[in-house]
Amino acid sequence: MSSWYMKKSLDNGIAVSSRIRLARNIKGLAFPSRMTDNDRQKLNETVKNAILESNTPFSKSLKFIDMEDVPENEKFSMVERHIISPEFASSQKRRAIIISEDESICIMIGEEDHLRIQVIYGGLELEKAYDVAEKLDTLLSGSLNFAFDSNLGFLTECPTNLGTGLRASVMLHLPVIEGEGGIADLAQSVNKIGFTVRGMYGEGSKAIGSLYQISNQITLGISEKNALDNLKIITTQLIEREQKARESLNKIKVEDLCMRAFGLLSNARLLSSEEMMNLISRIKLGQSLGIIDCENINPMGIFVEAQPYMLMRKFGTMSADERDIYRANFVREEIGKEKI
Amino acid sequence: MSSWYMKKSLDNGIAVSSRIRLARNIKGLAFPSRMTDNDRQKLNETVKNAILESNTPFSKSLKFIDMEDVPENEKFSMVERHIISPEFASSQKRRAIIISEDESICIMIGEEDHLRIQVIYGGLELEKAYDVAEKLDTLLSGSLNFAFDSNLGFLTECPTNLGTGLRASVMLHLPVIEGEGGIADLAQSVNKIGFTVRGMYGEGSKAIGSLYQISNQITLGISEKNALDNLKIITTQLIEREQKARESLNKIKVEDLCMRAFGLLSNARLLSSEEMMNLISRIKLGQSLGIIDCENINPMGIFVEAQPYMLMRKFGTMSADERDIYRANFVREEIGKEKI
Repeated sequence: MSSWYMKKSLDNGIAVSSRIRLARNIKGLAFPSRMTDNDRQKLNETVKNAILESNTPFSKSLKFIDMEDVPENEKFSMVERHIISPEFASSQKRRAIIISEDESICIMIGEEDHLRIQVIYGGLELEKAYDVAEKLDTLLSGSLNFAFDSNLGFLTECPTNLGTGLRASVMLHLPVIEGEGGIADLAQSVNKIGFTVRGMYGEGSKAIGSLYQISNQITLGISEKNALDNLKIITTQLIEREQKARESLNKIKVEDLCMRAFGLLSNARLLSSEEMMNLISRIKLGQSLGIIDCENINPMGIFVEAQPYMLMRKFGTMSADERDIYRANFVREEIGKEKI
Repeated sequence: MSSWYMKKSLDNGIAVSSRIRLARNIKGLAFPSRMTDNDRQKLNETVKNAILESNTPFSKSLKFIDMEDVPENEKFSMVERHIISPEFASSQKRRAIIISEDESICIMIGEEDHLRIQVIYGGLELEKAYDVAEKLDTLLSGSLNFAFDSNLGFLTECPTNLGTGLRASVMLHLPVIEGEGGIADLAQSVNKIGFTVRGMYGEGSKAIGSLYQISNQITLGISEKNALDNLKIITTQLIEREQKARESLNKIKVEDLCMRAFGLLSNARLLSSEEMMNLISRIKLGQSLGIIDCENINPMGIFVEAQPYMLMRKFGTMSADERDIYRANFVREEIGKEKI
């Protein structure tokens, strides 16, 4: 297995990744916001032992990491790789993760809840991701006494997670729906049935690189299966809609758009994060339409690896201006791997 | 000899071309604006004979062309090549030219004045161009009786040309002075000493491709030699100023600018005339700074050959939208001749 962003896109590459997150808390323990560093240290050890001494495949494939031992660049690059939350990365409190080699599994210990079990895969793989998350949940619930109420379900610090504690989401690449101004309508109609659309990467709701995350809002009064099924139906419809919109594009105009992005990325000497993301988005579109016929180019891989902390993790801490030079050089080399 | 725009730039390539124009009229004949088509026809023949039967090198190297025989695309492409004036190209009246193979010499017959003798060369070649124009002037004045007044000098339809009838101009590529916002100041100071700065290519005074024409305004009370000497001094100063400004540019920023232009021109599938000119201007700058190291790329050649009528002369009449496709293909091929 490789990381979600290293997976080769199948078909049209519209579904970029699928993510499952389960929020769990241990009965009798204060929520993390009220825990001392000593309590947190104990929690870390408890969860570590529950997994690593479980004598299951997980005890071999997963690794415990104390966040104290993780350098800053590595920590924030984990946010860019969607492994941990920004809040978790910047928190000054004691915290730890349990993570798999390919980073598809990551359990945050001491985030908003005691445990946040996350599984993320490339492509549309909701069931597969849920299966793994459920196995972890079952394993952990064997030794940890999860806070559970027969009426409210799993208890969580924030009431919006009460019930299943499940947040399922799919990241979609929607450049053409976005280009046609269709995102606002889409967000509204998806909202009505209990889902949200948020831009991935970029501040607040601003989407960069035409990447959108569709996720369930409702965790109470709905089974995990129903939530997943509904998300899959919506996702499949959106993929079809984007695909149809792509087919009706003006051939020469879209070819021009994609090839210009290719020309810029393979020649620029300075490249901001935002421009890189928007141009890579066009490379991804061009690949799906057969305009950019480069098997060796993995747009999402470049997209993630050219993020600020990912670059600094590789090349050392530097200023934003220096980063634009390193980013341009890195992307130019990656894009140049296969000459068109 | 090749056309001015096919000449390889020497040094920094800031001086693109040098042009001499002499306005002459024949004594006893009405000015062209008052001539009948019959009068014009006679004028054409008179000038034709004066040159072609002169038994000089000119009688062999120059060719008479009746503008009636020139197709529309060819006619307007001559404007793009700076051989004839736009007014001359679009006039419905009888008119003719006498032209050399390399188009460096062109005598317009029946423009605003009876004769407009033009010599244009690539680079800074004012004296050489003036020498040729003067030889033609001497030859013609042998058989034609030019209207000349001992006080006013050569008589011309428009009083601004009275005196020497000389308009000398140099086309300069000034991207960095322009980028620093220095053109307005430059125009003002040049104006004070009797010269004008005008943008070449582009409507009105708007400059596209950072190309500016510096020319003398005064033709009365100044000798040809003085006018030329002054123009050469100003031109040399401007070239030095642009050169100095280029040397103090931020290396990585200018490299980025030039390489992006290269990336766009070698990949775009749609290219407007204006964008092409502005990007070629950066290629030209990049070449002069050693950033774009392609001997086989001739920026001014591409610049002129990708103009609308130049394209239609080659590929046939087409709409502006179609032209953008043909232009992109043509430029891509030219730029691709030498891979960086």
